[in-house]
Amino acid sequence: MTKAVLNIGLVGSGFMGRCHANAFRSVGGLFDLPFNIHLHTLADVDDETASLQAQKLGFAHSTGSWETLVDNPEIDVVAITAPNALHEAITLAAIQAGKHVYCEKPLSTTCDSAKRMTEAAEQAGTTTLVGFNFLRNPLIHYAKSLIESGDVGEVISFRGRHAEDYMGNPESPHSFRTDPDGGGALADIGSHIVSMARFLVGPITNVNAVTETVHKERPVKPGSSERRPVLVDDVAHALLEFGNGATGSIDVSWMMTGRTMDLSFEITGTQGAIQFSQERMNELLVWTRQGGDGNGGFRKIETGPAHPPYGNFCPAPGHHLGFNDLKVIEVAELMECIEQGKPHYTGFREGYEVQCTIDAMLLLPNKTNG
Amino acid sequence: MTKAVLNIGLVGSGFMGRCHANAFRSVGGLFDLPFNIHLHTLADVDDETASLQAQKLGFAHSTGSWETLVDNPEIDVVAITAPNALHEAITLAAIQAGKHVYCEKPLSTTCDSAKRMTEAAEQAGTTTLVGFNFLRNPLIHYAKSLIESGDVGEVISFRGRHAEDYMGNPESPHSFRTDPDGGGALADIGSHIVSMARFLVGPITNVNAVTETVHKERPVKPGSSERRPVLVDDVAHALLEFGNGATGSIDVSWMMTGRTMDLSFEITGTQGAIQFSQERMNELLVWTRQGGDGNGGFRKIETGPAHPPYGNFCPAPGHHLGFNDLKVIEVAELMECIEQGKPHYTGFREGYEVQCTIDAMLLLPNKTNG
Amino acid sequence: MTKAVLNIGLVGSGFMGRCHANAFRSVGGLFDLPFNIHLHTLADVDDETASLQAQKLGFAHSTGSWETLVDNPEIDVVAITAPNALHEAITLAAIQAGKHVYCEKPLSTTCDSAKRMTEAAEQAGTTTLVGFNFLRNPLIHYAKSLIESGDVGEVISFRGRHAEDYMGNPESPHSFRTDPDGGGALADIGSHIVSMARFLVGPITNVNAVTETVHKERPVKPGSSERRPVLVDDVAHALLEFGNGATGSIDVSWMMTGRTMDLSFEITGTQGAIQFSQERMNELLVWTRQGGDGNGGFRKIETGPAHPPYGNFCPAPGHHLGFNDLKVIEVAELMECIEQGKPHYTGFREGYEVQCTIDAMLLLPNKTNG
Amino acid sequence: MTKAVLNIGLVGSGFMGRCHANAFRSVGGLFDLPFNIHLHTLADVDDETASLQAQKLGFAHSTGSWETLVDNPEIDVVAITAPNALHEAITLAAIQAGKHVYCEKPLSTTCDSAKRMTEAAEQAGTTTLVGFNFLRNPLIHYAKSLIESGDVGEVISFRGRHAEDYMGNPESPHSFRTDPDGGGALADIGSHIVSMARFLVGPITNVNAVTETVHKERPVKPGSSERRPVLVDDVAHALLEFGNGATGSIDVSWMMTGRTMDLSFEITGTQGAIQFSQERMNELLVWTRQGGDGNGGFRKIETGPAHPPYGNFCPAPGHHLGFNDLKVIEVAELMECIEQGKPHYTGFREGYEVQCTIDAMLLLPNKTNG
Repeated sequence: MTKAVLNIGLVGSGFMGRCHANAFRSVGGLFDLPFNIHLHTLADVDDETASLQAQKLGFAHSTGSWETLVDNPEIDVVAITAPNALHEAITLAAIQAGKHVYCEKPLSTTCDSAKRMTEAAEQAGTTTLVGFNFLRNPLIHYAKSLIESGDVGEVISFRGRHAEDYMGNPESPHSFRTDPDGGGALADIGSHIVSMARFLVGPITNVNAVTETVHKERPVKPGSSERRPVLVDDVAHALLEFGNGATGSIDVSWMMTGRTMDLSFEITGTQGAIQFSQERMNELLVWTRQGGDGNGGFRKIETGPAHPPYGNFCPAPGHHLGFNDLKVIEVAELMECIEQGKPHYTGFREGYEVQCTIDAMLLLPNKTNG
Repeated sequence: MTKAVLNIGLVGSGFMGRCHANAFRSVGGLFDLPFNIHLHTLADVDDETASLQAQKLGFAHSTGSWETLVDNPEIDVVAITAPNALHEAITLAAIQAGKHVYCEKPLSTTCDSAKRMTEAAEQAGTTTLVGFNFLRNPLIHYAKSLIESGDVGEVISFRGRHAEDYMGNPESPHSFRTDPDGGGALADIGSHIVSMARFLVGPITNVNAVTETVHKERPVKPGSSERRPVLVDDVAHALLEFGNGATGSIDVSWMMTGRTMDLSFEITGTQGAIQFSQERMNELLVWTRQGGDGNGGFRKIETGPAHPPYGNFCPAPGHHLGFNDLKVIEVAELMECIEQGKPHYTGFREGYEVQCTIDAMLLLPNKTNG
Repeated sequence: MTKAVLNIGLVGSGFMGRCHANAFRSVGGLFDLPFNIHLHTLADVDDETASLQAQKLGFAHSTGSWETLVDNPEIDVVAITAPNALHEAITLAAIQAGKHVYCEKPLSTTCDSAKRMTEAAEQAGTTTLVGFNFLRNPLIHYAKSLIESGDVGEVISFRGRHAEDYMGNPESPHSFRTDPDGGGALADIGSHIVSMARFLVGPITNVNAVTETVHKERPVKPGSSERRPVLVDDVAHALLEFGNGATGSIDVSWMMTGRTMDLSFEITGTQGAIQFSQERMNELLVWTRQGGDGNGGFRKIETGPAHPPYGNFCPAPGHHLGFNDLKVIEVAELMECIEQGKPHYTGFREGYEVQCTIDAMLLLPNKTNG
Repeated sequence: MTKAVLNIGLVGSGFMGRCHANAFRSVGGLFDLPFNIHLHTLADVDDETASLQAQKLGFAHSTGSWETLVDNPEIDVVAITAPNALHEAITLAAIQAGKHVYCEKPLSTTCDSAKRMTEAAEQAGTTTLVGFNFLRNPLIHYAKSLIESGDVGEVISFRGRHAEDYMGNPESPHSFRTDPDGGGALADIGSHIVSMARFLVGPITNVNAVTETVHKERPVKPGSSERRPVLVDDVAHALLEFGNGATGSIDVSWMMTGRTMDLSFEITGTQGAIQFSQERMNELLVWTRQGGDGNGGFRKIETGPAHPPYGNFCPAPGHHLGFNDLKVIEVAELMECIEQGKPHYTGFREGYEVQCTIDAMLLLPNKTNG
């Protein structure tokens, strides 16, 4: 029996676009998918770029217009890795054209925009997925299972952070990242740790935050001597209250010297605790009451076949997953949701709720950067 | 030439009392002190206990009354390890009697009380020291020197915590720790991380906090079936703003499952970063711009003779210091301040300021435990 | 301009076969290859298996006979993931048919067999590659560059190990792994750490070893109550002398409880040292004289774009590579060698030399298992 | 009731002499000893040095002659921290004078000399102790209890090392450490890891080793331009066979760049494994079969009151022990053995057996330094 073919239209071929393309190419050999995936069309900023990248990434067709891609009735899934400001327009058009939409995070630039996208998708009944890659890690799902099974007791504290250093250089110029509409460290990477907190602990009911703008101005463009003030946050520390009574804090910064991807957390429950850092994404540290006095300790659990879908990548433990593998898992999950018509746990509604939490942190009056 | 003898009067022989006694006994063989230390008198709850403990700990005399000890004109230094509620009374009497005062943290149970003690001591011109042990670590001073020399640039973020688990058991009964006047996790151990933040980054100008009471009631005494409500915090997360513009967060809890002494921090500057945890008190992780692309990383610095006064304990690196050694350093510092008549960096004024920061966190309206 | 197509014939679809297939599928979107890769034919134990797996893994054709695959003139590269005992026969046939040969490690079951394969390949001038995956790690090449540049001085000591635990259960039955001809822990996984030592430090001129057979008998097949003696090593410890005067030791075992892939080493030179473990394959610990007294320490270098070809997988640091990515790099290197007609650094000759070192360790008289 | 007084005579006031003095001073306040310890006499190289050091370290008397000390009938215990070459003479005289002898490691410079000392002590029935400090660590005893209880199954492999870097500088001059009679890295520090292996796994029945002399000549004395050849080992790698069938390896060097005290081991049994490094002396990593598939991992056990005699130093976990504390434990153990007239587990016989193992490694023909 031949599987149905699912045609993919990808918008954008930058860092994330390539990452999507790689996942779409690889997933079929690793997962037993309900569809055969066909890399149908790549859309990019102009025809020439699109054509070149399509050849490199293995797409059959290309176009310089995302509208053309979205309008093509052959395409089943629209994957969006275009700049954040375009997410809403592409998404709404794709939904109207009856496509499933796979959108990179953040879902949009504001809570309101994200809401419009979410409501349109839910009304249309299309399958949606926001690319919170880090939640695809098998160990994160294992952590969730430990919490749900009660192994760590009642969760009382969440301490998280997302720390990178890619904006530490004051000569790093303005870009969409520093755009007052939708920019800043909290918006750019804070969404990762907020989505992690929500996934593992649950809804966040109250927040408070202090933010800081370290480099008060940046070049208007790369190498320029003209400078413009920076109006977004570089560093943020926030307090969290969860619906289940737990409290917590998160720390977010894109100028955490020495840190390239410390998306990390420690979750403490009344009976146990769980630590994780994306810096060592194949390890989970777990403490539970066991073994009696003097014999306990955080144990370092390594990813392995006992943590699905690790086994799709390798039948033996000890062979680590990498970042790109997380995207492959994401695509496999998307396929399953499309086939079964069920919502994904980070569908648009989740992306919207994350965005509103971030917005709430930014709207607080106690920002130090006025 | 014979050194002058300094007579020590110690109040209390519990955990901290024994720790003080051990330090007073050991310090002379390790440091070239300006005085010969004499363990003169131990005061404890009654004559019998005092006599027994004095013999064990090597004190020449003993008394069941701290007033007797304080009134003895032979005694030069009064060391206080009595319950927090007694700190003020003993201190004020000792100051009036012209003694130097060495008091365990927290300085007192309220900001106001600490203020009275501080002002009395400053008026009398006596030497005071509050026992913030963890600041005696040679690596903490090394961290401070790295910050002061500008090696990490301008400090932009402080992320700290003090996590233990000694109150995690709901059967742990009420004690002075859960007394609404001066109790709670923030007051008991939060002072450690606040004093660390102040020592390394500077004055804290603004705070915000969320606190939580996990076990809503506890036995009135060990083994009792009678329970009384708990009115103090078990878990606290707080935001910090420093005078120099840096921001930060601290997390404090005495029910952090799996953690016995995670007094830890990461300080991030524009040019580097420093990590420390008391769990590995002989290691400091430091990142600075060096070595070029792809060659940098946090380096693990081990305590050694290059970090004074490590060399007083051992002439070679690789031989770790322990907790009790920190108290020995503290006593050596006290001796030097007494001889030179100079204030200690954690004299009473510092103890008072730490207490006021803690009080401010607790007075905030957004406590979840009403 | 259209690239030439390179037709791949893969023998075997087990763990390594799937790994090869995945690499062949993915590599084109990640590397700018000189060829377009076509997954031409999969050969497996019978026609049915081959057909099923070919569909799963994306091969155009399939066959139950490796001879058919090797004889097909359309095929350019024969990739061998068949049992070790078949490596020589398939390889010699493939070479005779003018193919390039990409063979999984170990190259063969004996030093003599490996020699015949190597000489045949060299005479034919074909490109060969033995799948020592772990040497493809960008950080291993970075370690080599540090050694070659003299940054760690003259290498004086190598301490390595390969520890897994997959044969720890005494009920794990006999298989090709326990076959007296070519089996044992040293032969199965010792080759990884020997190839690592040779790659980083250089030729090994003298060895000595002690080996141990822990489980003296095993079931003849899964679940069987019939048992047969085990004649191969479970645990081995060996001494090494290198041509450059350095000495070292390696420890190899497939029953190292708690270890799933500790392929690790510490290389010490007169001016610095390097540590690595496959358990944290994205980290390299490096110590060099720097920063003066009390300021040095092993620094944790994370993989990033400064360590090619990491940048082919991701343009930013902090995004880890996984095991399967190493195979993609291996295939990219194979493509380059084929195009340029240059030998690979782990071509057949290297596979042969590694095997002879292993054989020498096993031939020593001081085996404890008689 | 007053305790008997035990008079201590200490020979030497260098690094180890000070360490002994500190332990004798402190131990009484921390342990409930059967004796009151009196620091009676310090002997040193001359009267003046002895007098000065006695005052510093708190000894009542001093002498420039160890013979005088040994002959003093008031003295009960002779503690020897003099150069290794003097150990035998002082010991034999002390035994003849009826003293208990507490001798720093190595027991002597040769296996034969150590044998004479051991036999003399056993004949006299005196209490002896060799200062293998690192075995006093509560976690090492905890590791032994895990092995003895069968928690890790049958021990099958020991992998150990002692790595420091204090002789890495080629300008470090000749000293007793490089004396062909009793010098070299194996003799100086190898004894630590050999004693550890024997304590935890049992008698060693067979050894093999390769050694290396990296710096072929050194200055005859500090700062001298005259150089003399070095005839002892800088680096050694050795194979071990234990009486119980386990095998292993140790690596020893005093020029392991970047390492100040990596006395470390991994012990693997059929059911579990234990890791330790003196670099993190308050942590033990333990793996045992538990918790089922995907839930296991090495757990980090921290020292605490459950590991006696930690509780003598601190009643709560989380307060680390330091190197000097190990010496305090050693002295407490000595006191108990003296009172009860029972042999210590590292009495002279153990010191002698360790020395013979080291000698056997050095006598092997395959030394690279001819």
